[in-house]
Amino acid sequence: MESHLKSLLQPLGRTELCDSVIPALLDCISEIAKSLRESQHVSLAGTTNAFGDGQLNVDMAAENLVREALAKCPSIVTASSEEEPVERAAGDGQAVNPTSEKYTVAFDPLDGSSIIAPNWTVGTILGIWDGASAINQQPSEKQIASVLGVYGPRTTAIIALRVPGGEPQCLEIGIGGSGQEHQIIRSNVRLADPPFKTRYFAPANLRVAGQSENYMRLIMHFIEKSYTLRYCGGLVPDIVHALVKGHGVYVSPVTVASPAKLRRLYELFPIALIMECAGGKAIDPATGEDILNRPLEDCDETAGLVCGTAEEVEIVKKVLLGA
Amino acid sequence: MESHLKSLLQPLGRTELCDSVIPALLDCISEIAKSLRESQHVSLAGTTNAFGDGQLNVDMAAENLVREALAKCPSIVTASSEEEPVERAAGDGQAVNPTSEKYTVAFDPLDGSSIIAPNWTVGTILGIWDGASAINQQPSEKQIASVLGVYGPRTTAIIALRVPGGEPQCLEIGIGGSGQEHQIIRSNVRLADPPFKTRYFAPANLRVAGQSENYMRLIMHFIEKSYTLRYCGGLVPDIVHALVKGHGVYVSPVTVASPAKLRRLYELFPIALIMECAGGKAIDPATGEDILNRPLEDCDETAGLVCGTAEEVEIVKKVLLGA
Repeated sequence: MESHLKSLLQPLGRTELCDSVIPALLDCISEIAKSLRESQHVSLAGTTNAFGDGQLNVDMAAENLVREALAKCPSIVTASSEEEPVERAAGDGQAVNPTSEKYTVAFDPLDGSSIIAPNWTVGTILGIWDGASAINQQPSEKQIASVLGVYGPRTTAIIALRVPGGEPQCLEIGIGGSGQEHQIIRSNVRLADPPFKTRYFAPANLRVAGQSENYMRLIMHFIEKSYTLRYCGGLVPDIVHALVKGHGVYVSPVTVASPAKLRRLYELFPIALIMECAGGKAIDPATGEDILNRPLEDCDETAGLVCGTAEEVEIVKKVLLGA
Repeated sequence: MESHLKSLLQPLGRTELCDSVIPALLDCISEIAKSLRESQHVSLAGTTNAFGDGQLNVDMAAENLVREALAKCPSIVTASSEEEPVERAAGDGQAVNPTSEKYTVAFDPLDGSSIIAPNWTVGTILGIWDGASAINQQPSEKQIASVLGVYGPRTTAIIALRVPGGEPQCLEIGIGGSGQEHQIIRSNVRLADPPFKTRYFAPANLRVAGQSENYMRLIMHFIEKSYTLRYCGGLVPDIVHALVKGHGVYVSPVTVASPAKLRRLYELFPIALIMECAGGKAIDPATGEDILNRPLEDCDETAGLVCGTAEEVEIVKKVLLGA
């Protein structure tokens, strides 16, 4: 795997990204997987009414593991996370060997709290930006890579790369255990072109269809056209399903009664980059605009999401926007 | 965990069940988890059009691990599996110490083939029957235990016990790694009583709603009443979600255009026992009858399934049967 990354990134002058940043993040995903595997009693929290301490502890353990990984990489100068949505220095500010590459990492350490207790697949979301901040930058140019960690029966990762001067890349990685090598499962993750053998849909926040005529029309379209339903309610596994199957559309609409909940910086931007690098699309259902078109003004911003196979995203856009 | 099982089963004269059968099955679940964790390239099969060799290899590895575990238990005299649906001797027929307890085990070694490639949670289903066969026996009396193995970020198991003379039991177990102890996560898994804080639904085969007026009415009921959708398409994780959250209803209807696919012996009976032991219900959507009421005539029989919270199963029954 390392030689493959080197062949992609070294010609683009991204030595730190391929020798330090991405390996540190993949090792960190391996560590989070181990921590989850050993946290049997954490699931108890999910069985109580409120979010209990145990569940918060799993999130915090993942947060700490990512922060430790970032601090090891001199080229990562800034970090912020969904658990603490403020940009601050990633290391101790005393890097011995300042590098010519400078990155900002924005991450959601453990996405899918609601499905941790029943032992469903959950994930980590990481976005890597050129420069010392993600704020007021053009996401489509400055977010140059993103990584998803997928914790299921196996531990896997998706890496998307869109480094200036290079072709967009999307890879699936098999994460090894402690001290083991990571391996490439697929070096070119691509959503399929039509005609589609099986069409999948993942309708988030389905109860909104009770108040939204357009969302209900969309659901009826999926049922009448015999789409296959797969919706686990975890953003990472729902997105990875589409990438691995080669088809899928994820729909999280926003209405007055149901405000946007997905964080632009920690969830939408990294997912959108992966979808685009895999040949798909990711748009804001409120405007139809590409998720990666509009810069961030504040780490806390939220929006809806429609993403996946480009042809399906176009259909959803037309129905939801009533166009 | 072992002392808890002993306290439940020894007074009922089930020494082999608690000292040999259940420990062997839990260790086997730990082995299957390890095998899945190390099978990174198996996922490739799911990405091809046909069911490839890799995927079949994972199923077969799990099948072999279960067969090996059963052969170690002198009290297990008969076994059959979804991969080979014929009852045959579980061991070599040469048990040195024949025991007074005699069991038949029916199992699905790895349920959820379609979601193995995207690294979603999958499971193992095992039913334990009193006597030398499951055929032409009353399931509600003769299937005395069932076990689900759940392979996600962690490895867990659900055990249901309904041994004559004892109270029904449902436990959640955290499965340890090789040589590690298994531990009780919850000693009393129970579906909640109304009022329900959050109501969950898992609609299998949703495309059938396009041809079935009753199924469509049911889906509309769920949406209008603001139920939360969780449907991953793996029977084990979908059932375990309801058990861990304390609420849920799983609906897999059968129509002329969409024949029954769930195996009565390998899927429906073990799931139904778990649901009943957790205070829920499991019925055949074609008749409204309890799944465990009707004996099996052939290992291959299939049916639909509605199961989960008793109040919800009653609502679904009325809508689907148009009563």
